[in-house]
Amino acid sequence: MKRITFVLVAVAVAGFVALSIPASGDADNEAAPVFGIKIFPGYRDWKLISVAHEEGNLNDIRAILGNDIAIKAYREGKLPFPDGAVIARIAWSYVPSEENDKVFGRRQSFVPGPAPDWYLQFMVKDSKKYAATGGWGYAQFDIDGKPADEAKHKTCYPCHEPIKARDFVFTRYAP
Amino acid sequence: MKRITFVLVAVAVAGFVALSIPASGDADNEAAPVFGIKIFPGYRDWKLISVAHEEGNLNDIRAILGNDIAIKAYREGKLPFPDGAVIARIAWSYVPSEENDKVFGRRQSFVPGPAPDWYLQFMVKDSKKYAATGGWGYAQFDIDGKPADEAKHKTCYPCHEPIKARDFVFTRYAP
Repeated sequence: MKRITFVLVAVAVAGFVALSIPASGDADNEAAPVFGIKIFPGYRDWKLISVAHEEGNLNDIRAILGNDIAIKAYREGKLPFPDGAVIARIAWSYVPSEENDKVFGRRQSFVPGPAPDWYLQFMVKDSKKYAATGGWGYAQFDIDGKPADEAKHKTCYPCHEPIKARDFVFTRYAP
Repeated sequence: MKRITFVLVAVAVAGFVALSIPASGDADNEAAPVFGIKIFPGYRDWKLISVAHEEGNLNDIRAILGNDIAIKAYREGKLPFPDGAVIARIAWSYVPSEENDKVFGRRQSFVPGPAPDWYLQFMVKDSKKYAATGGWGYAQFDIDGKPADEAKHKTCYPCHEPIKARDFVFTRYAP
């Protein structure tokens, strides 16, 4: 009986530990200011919307992922996005791949490097809660899950505001 | 009774039609030559491995996705990849986004444009079946699902051969 209890406790502890060590950045983190958004557990497993390279001060390469509600809306070409749609944007610094270029015999291949401060962003559709900012809440986190400050979060909507015709979303779906 | 039969037939037909119109390039397509690989149904829903930009003659921006076996191996950092691992690479031509740049007030944003001939590629791990080419089979398709020719498929392995130390896979996992 003691052994059975021990096994059950061990299984329970193992289960707890397994649940406590998420695959990637899913930690129970601090909410970002202004919009009160936390990192969405499992976002790194979401489906791909598109990719992009931003030059200039950003100089990053990025992937844009969506939860199932966002992906469905994208594929159906429906605007505005429905409440519950969440878009995740992951950015990495844009670096040449010396190991790839060696094979190709020329400078050709650019790949994700170290994470910049603006590593992870979310847009969360809630037309009532975020009515004052086009129905979207915004959040930014670094690779350690630390949210950007309030001032930074106040810059999100003014930049997205000019693309109201696309429901404030820059990224189009890549087929 | 007649009505019930009709409804059942209608449901069966609707089911068949629904199954016959896949979401994205999942059509029952022609197998690529040399390695006999067909487009994997549902690949566009696979999880993200990484992104890249290739300059030069390619001049594309690309996403690399993996089936669950490939993703698991990547996240565990295990080489060689186990049999059953499949890596999908989707490439789009690399174009400036005029609509994004207009908002930023400068040329900054590069996004997926029209699909090049090398739109879709797969690497399929089967250490026995593809023993002669490092345990990987290769396939390339255009956006209409048409496979590239035999000569093209014979160029895959020679290019991947130099990166045997990475189990012949160029792409690293982006965290």
